[in-house]
Amino acid sequence: MKNTQIKLIARPVGMPKASDFSIEENEMPILKDGEFLVKNEYISLDPAMRGWMRDVRSYIPPVALGDVMRAGTVGEVIESKNDKFKVGDFASGWGGVQKYSVSDGKMSHKVDPSIAPLPKFLGVLGMPGMTAYFGLLHVGEPKEGDTVLVSGGAGAVGSVVGQIAKVKGCRVVGIAGGAEKCKYLVDTLGFDDAIDYKNENIHKAIKRTCPKGIDVYFDNVGGEILDAALGRINMHARIVICGAISQYNNETPVKGPSNYLSLLVNRARMQGMVVMDYAKDYRMAAMEMGGWMMQGKLHSKEFIVDGIETFPETLLRLFNGDKMGKLLLKV
Amino acid sequence: MKNTQIKLIARPVGMPKASDFSIEENEMPILKDGEFLVKNEYISLDPAMRGWMRDVRSYIPPVALGDVMRAGTVGEVIESKNDKFKVGDFASGWGGVQKYSVSDGKMSHKVDPSIAPLPKFLGVLGMPGMTAYFGLLHVGEPKEGDTVLVSGGAGAVGSVVGQIAKVKGCRVVGIAGGAEKCKYLVDTLGFDDAIDYKNENIHKAIKRTCPKGIDVYFDNVGGEILDAALGRINMHARIVICGAISQYNNETPVKGPSNYLSLLVNRARMQGMVVMDYAKDYRMAAMEMGGWMMQGKLHSKEFIVDGIETFPETLLRLFNGDKMGKLLLKV
Repeated sequence: MKNTQIKLIARPVGMPKASDFSIEENEMPILKDGEFLVKNEYISLDPAMRGWMRDVRSYIPPVALGDVMRAGTVGEVIESKNDKFKVGDFASGWGGVQKYSVSDGKMSHKVDPSIAPLPKFLGVLGMPGMTAYFGLLHVGEPKEGDTVLVSGGAGAVGSVVGQIAKVKGCRVVGIAGGAEKCKYLVDTLGFDDAIDYKNENIHKAIKRTCPKGIDVYFDNVGGEILDAALGRINMHARIVICGAISQYNNETPVKGPSNYLSLLVNRARMQGMVVMDYAKDYRMAAMEMGGWMMQGKLHSKEFIVDGIETFPETLLRLFNGDKMGKLLLKV
Repeated sequence: MKNTQIKLIARPVGMPKASDFSIEENEMPILKDGEFLVKNEYISLDPAMRGWMRDVRSYIPPVALGDVMRAGTVGEVIESKNDKFKVGDFASGWGGVQKYSVSDGKMSHKVDPSIAPLPKFLGVLGMPGMTAYFGLLHVGEPKEGDTVLVSGGAGAVGSVVGQIAKVKGCRVVGIAGGAEKCKYLVDTLGFDDAIDYKNENIHKAIKRTCPKGIDVYFDNVGGEILDAALGRINMHARIVICGAISQYNNETPVKGPSNYLSLLVNRARMQGMVVMDYAKDYRMAAMEMGGWMMQGKLHSKEFIVDGIETFPETLLRLFNGDKMGKLLLKV
């Protein structure tokens, strides 16, 4: 038995490429007391990974060159020297882009595949779902009747943001790339309207879909879309800075929001968030979201690509938009 | 008797110039019931004026072409058909850049020259002082021991921000242009340190003066200094967007803060404010600030230029920094 591992071996410049990673077959790890071995079944691919590849001060240290690429994972415990995680349990944690991973349990939690299929625990019931829940409710603070605009609306985070905003009685508009995604937002997820940013002038589209202005803008993309949204915010609007995927592969400096003085004019705030801060409340959030799922108010989709060795090219789907919903690798 | 009036006759492109204004000698106004006539003694020149000259949606309508330029004023009531404002009273309000102005009292309030010299009512006890008070305390929310950085530190707003932050037990660093202003911040106003942005690399200077990072950044200038400050903020930092004087005369789009993703990394917020929102609490703030003045904790300086007709060129001192403290015209 060998462990297939994807390691970061170079800091990407611009879009990550195959040569930034190695694919290795290494010896299986040997467990110490308190550890357990997980056979990873699904690996989460997230925009945040691009940041972790960068050697800068951030909310988490970068992945060191030569280390297995950091990733959220879910899989089955197949060997254990840990009292809490037993063989046959399913666990989610930071297993990394590899077939097998060792954990001491501190950053892992058990999941129950009878509640939801395993991929959901990396999507709507995992980090992206928690990010949507806490980012929208704690930072965005939507009120009934508010207009909520969300970019990356068909993505793992944005699709959940919009649906939670609907639960809270808001008018919800999603921004996504392409007619198919926009149709999905409105027809399946129940958004009030959608903007196809690839085929519509974003400024005109926001005016069209948000005639009363924007009260909460949940930003996953940055760049021109953030600027366009700033241009249409209402008094006391809240802008949640969750990500800026349009800027992650820049070789030039990040494009700052030229319209930021709209914050002054509208006494609005722009605030960043990192999901880990809410770890102690994940369980409560997952229960509430599970309830919405059972009531049919919270739908989710996974886009699953087979084969851990496809990691370098599959990752690019996050940036070119060639996927719908949560992007996962099936090991 | 004639009324000298400065009117806006063209929308400035870039830096305002003499030909954007007319200087006229017009007939004296005739009072209606409820109105009173003020002989303006001092006229306030503020960075916000540049925004009011621009024909865009903002927190207040632009000055119409052909109208007297909007300005805060203080002067003596010399004629009155208003019960509250009597001849001999002193009043502050939005009199505009003219020798005499008519008010119905709604946007005016009486001032008492025995409490403080008239110019103070346009500075530390007027809009700039109120902006500093509410912007710092309500939006910046400084806590004892916080590091507070303020740009435009020798200006009418910034100088008060820094002194209030000292009252609240913060470490205060001011940014100003030139050695004389920096010396004033430290020696007279009691700031802990100062940065001369005209003669020092701003990134290195912030690192030097804020070794523990920035908890509150009060921004009056925007541009590169805002970006440098964002690069050194602490977790949960608050950035008060009060103005962006470095960008007001741009002929190109406003420079957005390229480092805005520091808000995400640091779970920080950037929030705009407009002083008018706090009008109902001005009196309470003025009383508290008056107390600090009497205790010697709140100093202020006015830079007074003689002659209403110098308005177009005197205004430029706001942008080239050729003044210290609150800029006023003496009529």
